[in-house]
Amino acid sequence: MFKPGPIYLFRVPEDEELISYLTLFAKEKNIKTGVVNAIGALKECTLGFYDQHKQVYEYIKIEEEVELTNLSGNISIKEGEPFVHVHAIVGKRNGSTYSGHLVEARVFVAEVLVIELVGGVELVREKHGGLWLWKPK
Amino acid sequence: MFKPGPIYLFRVPEDEELISYLTLFAKEKNIKTGVVNAIGALKECTLGFYDQHKQVYEYIKIEEEVELTNLSGNISIKEGEPFVHVHAIVGKRNGSTYSGHLVEARVFVAEVLVIELVGGVELVREKHGGLWLWKPK
Amino acid sequence: MFKPGPIYLFRVPEDEELISYLTLFAKEKNIKTGVVNAIGALKECTLGFYDQHKQVYEYIKIEEEVELTNLSGNISIKEGEPFVHVHAIVGKRNGSTYSGHLVEARVFVAEVLVIELVGGVELVREKHGGLWLWKPK
Repeated sequence: MFKPGPIYLFRVPEDEELISYLTLFAKEKNIKTGVVNAIGALKECTLGFYDQHKQVYEYIKIEEEVELTNLSGNISIKEGEPFVHVHAIVGKRNGSTYSGHLVEARVFVAEVLVIELVGGVELVREKHGGLWLWKPK
Repeated sequence: MFKPGPIYLFRVPEDEELISYLTLFAKEKNIKTGVVNAIGALKECTLGFYDQHKQVYEYIKIEEEVELTNLSGNISIKEGEPFVHVHAIVGKRNGSTYSGHLVEARVFVAEVLVIELVGGVELVREKHGGLWLWKPK
Repeated sequence: MFKPGPIYLFRVPEDEELISYLTLFAKEKNIKTGVVNAIGALKECTLGFYDQHKQVYEYIKIEEEVELTNLSGNISIKEGEPFVHVHAIVGKRNGSTYSGHLVEARVFVAEVLVIELVGGVELVREKHGGLWLWKPK
């Protein structure tokens, strides 16, 4: 059980790689638990689809500009460090939509919300097949 | 007008039915008002599309594993009990994306955020055609 | 760095235009910084795709009823007034999904969450090509 800590609302600079940027942000602010949301537009991105049987990610490369119509996820601890896990939904020129685990993204514009959560028990990711997961509740 | 109450961030165990699990969670914690978000992966799910003229849901069965790329919604009161209303967006193996009212979902992994809202006037759902709705503002 | 202010959870009346409604709401409550989320169903809507090279929006008109499967974005200041910037994801009858910058939408049902953020430095939008953007972090 957590309560809200500091809340950040900011724009990521153009051409940053979004996952690296958010990870660095979480580390700099020492955010051990948090939630992340964003909207914006991307120059290109790579989505992941986890094959639940083969236990590996397949990659979907989107090599065109898209609207980032939703990014959602969280910050928790993996191997002792703040770790960002987010999924993304993107819209192409005609509105058709692709989504998955966000592997990487080159930013055109990204407006990001991070809510740090404090006062609860840290969530720690441990290896579980091809994934790093929290203990289930 | 509400203020934040307790915040929960947790993983739903594999093979749980997500709507039942969230409903039970809300009842156990006695959450009368709240917001819900999640990401993860599902083994299968059923989405709903509400026909606004016939006033019934049509069902879209997705009988394959998908990424849960966004789940969003709320907790309020229906027939005296906490009730979970969420929509879901899912990505298939090639990233192509489906979405709707979430009817049911079998969990592979789900990382869920619940923010309880306190201090405001409870929102109560009442029957309105084929839907259960709050009074409009 | 912000902290949570008042939180609003409410239903937008049928047939309202959603962007106008949210903008008026933000102005009436004098919300200078905030986050917005919604789910619901729309009678029709127009999405925008920003052409990053031509620096103009292209419009995608969706002239049929859809589930609003996610709306996400924020409130900040543009030309001295509260301004709502949101992206939307919508699901058609068969679950196929479209998304983009939300230009306008006629509401069937919309359940909206607004979290006002207080205590931080206001975010102000300034003209930058065809967009109004915050200074990057």
